[in-house]
Amino acid sequence: MERLFVIKIGGNIIDDETALSAFFKQFSEVEVKKVLVHGGGKLATELAQQLHIAQQMIEGRRITDAETLKIVTMVYAGLINKKLVAQLQALGCNAIGMTGVDGNLIRSHKRTNAGIDYGFVGDIDYVNTALLTNLFKEVEAVVIAPITHDKNGQLLNTNADTIAQELAKALAGKYAVELIYCFEKPGVLLDANNDNSVIAHINKAGFQDLKDTKAIYDGMIPKLTNAFAAVDSGVSKVIIGRAGQLTQLIEGNAGTTISNG
Amino acid sequence: MERLFVIKIGGNIIDDETALSAFFKQFSEVEVKKVLVHGGGKLATELAQQLHIAQQMIEGRRITDAETLKIVTMVYAGLINKKLVAQLQALGCNAIGMTGVDGNLIRSHKRTNAGIDYGFVGDIDYVNTALLTNLFKEVEAVVIAPITHDKNGQLLNTNADTIAQELAKALAGKYAVELIYCFEKPGVLLDANNDNSVIAHINKAGFQDLKDTKAIYDGMIPKLTNAFAAVDSGVSKVIIGRAGQLTQLIEGNAGTTISNG
Repeated sequence: MERLFVIKIGGNIIDDETALSAFFKQFSEVEVKKVLVHGGGKLATELAQQLHIAQQMIEGRRITDAETLKIVTMVYAGLINKKLVAQLQALGCNAIGMTGVDGNLIRSHKRTNAGIDYGFVGDIDYVNTALLTNLFKEVEAVVIAPITHDKNGQLLNTNADTIAQELAKALAGKYAVELIYCFEKPGVLLDANNDNSVIAHINKAGFQDLKDTKAIYDGMIPKLTNAFAAVDSGVSKVIIGRAGQLTQLIEGNAGTTISNG
Repeated sequence: MERLFVIKIGGNIIDDETALSAFFKQFSEVEVKKVLVHGGGKLATELAQQLHIAQQMIEGRRITDAETLKIVTMVYAGLINKKLVAQLQALGCNAIGMTGVDGNLIRSHKRTNAGIDYGFVGDIDYVNTALLTNLFKEVEAVVIAPITHDKNGQLLNTNADTIAQELAKALAGKYAVELIYCFEKPGVLLDANNDNSVIAHINKAGFQDLKDTKAIYDGMIPKLTNAFAAVDSGVSKVIIGRAGQLTQLIEGNAGTTISNG
């Protein structure tokens, strides 16, 4: 099967011009079909502040009321998505920017939760993989802003990590998919304060050991659990590492690779 | 050749929920490939006011400084484009939202003018018709926000009327293109104050007569001149009329049709 990368870049990379530029240079040179899912960074929070729209965070998640939904749609789907695509075009990488709304790429439903009302937040039901496959006849990269819809006219703010994971799983039947999470750290660390303590490879048995011995940072456990779920759904491997080291991550010379092997 | 409609809707329609809903109902029922180009409406001006970014208009055109470019990118490419596409999806019309940046659909250059500095405003150099043709294998409608790029990473604010005209002209070799301008008036009027004075059909000889006898409103002359330029470039006809009467406009039962016939 043909290789395909689903790459997620976090907000910290979008806010950091040097890191973004280093990432894009490598991204545009990789001759493999690429889906890039981006988060929002601090721009949405800044715009909300300027417009005096109070932002409520519960357990690290933004509560998306109607006004906040407008803000994230403007910032993620408008400003950031188009800036990223324009930069890729300038590097000679033919990219198309989209949201889950476009061509019904990602349909979701509004999250209902007995405890917390997250507002206009979507949980994914469906990924239109046929559309992506056909877009790749035209372009080298599809750049996705984390906005989806319910097919009844409602836009929904959707977690970018989850979008990357669901796209990778849905595309796994058609391509040899590698799911790459790029952030500001060099990988999964044995010691959160030591960037030289990257664990190069984790398989399931190793993950169990790490949990049993409490050797890794608690916050990493849900990420790794999701990574193994992706691998169990047919994703070849999941790679976690620094955005500026994309080429090395892909070659297995940096970051943490999660696989069943 | 297969029919294709390039339809421009003005900001007044986007701001008017009833008119937009009537328009979309008809738009989604037309079984012809459709390109929809939208303007911005008052939302961009409102957001600029809320953010205290002064807007400068010269001869009815918005001067696009760096901060204003961010605003129009957020409002046109983000909020409006995604809202329109979500509404079409809810009506069962599979649409994809784009800007000129995406897939290098529309490349332009920054306008240079000895007299007035319009800022980050683009004049169109190139339309990627192959991309549109291929997108129509996937979707029924392509919804375009009036943002283009220079292929060097710079986004450019671009007149939506001009985008519609250039797309229609570029597609004219591949499709039987009809270019439809929808606005709040029922067509080209003999008497600007009388909505019952619509001129049903104008050909070149008739246009000359209308100009010679000063029978039409001055502001209409550049629009009609552009319409005849489109017809001269292979567009089958240009139709001008009310958004809520789209079906009748297409059938020639309302509005003004401009053709060489």
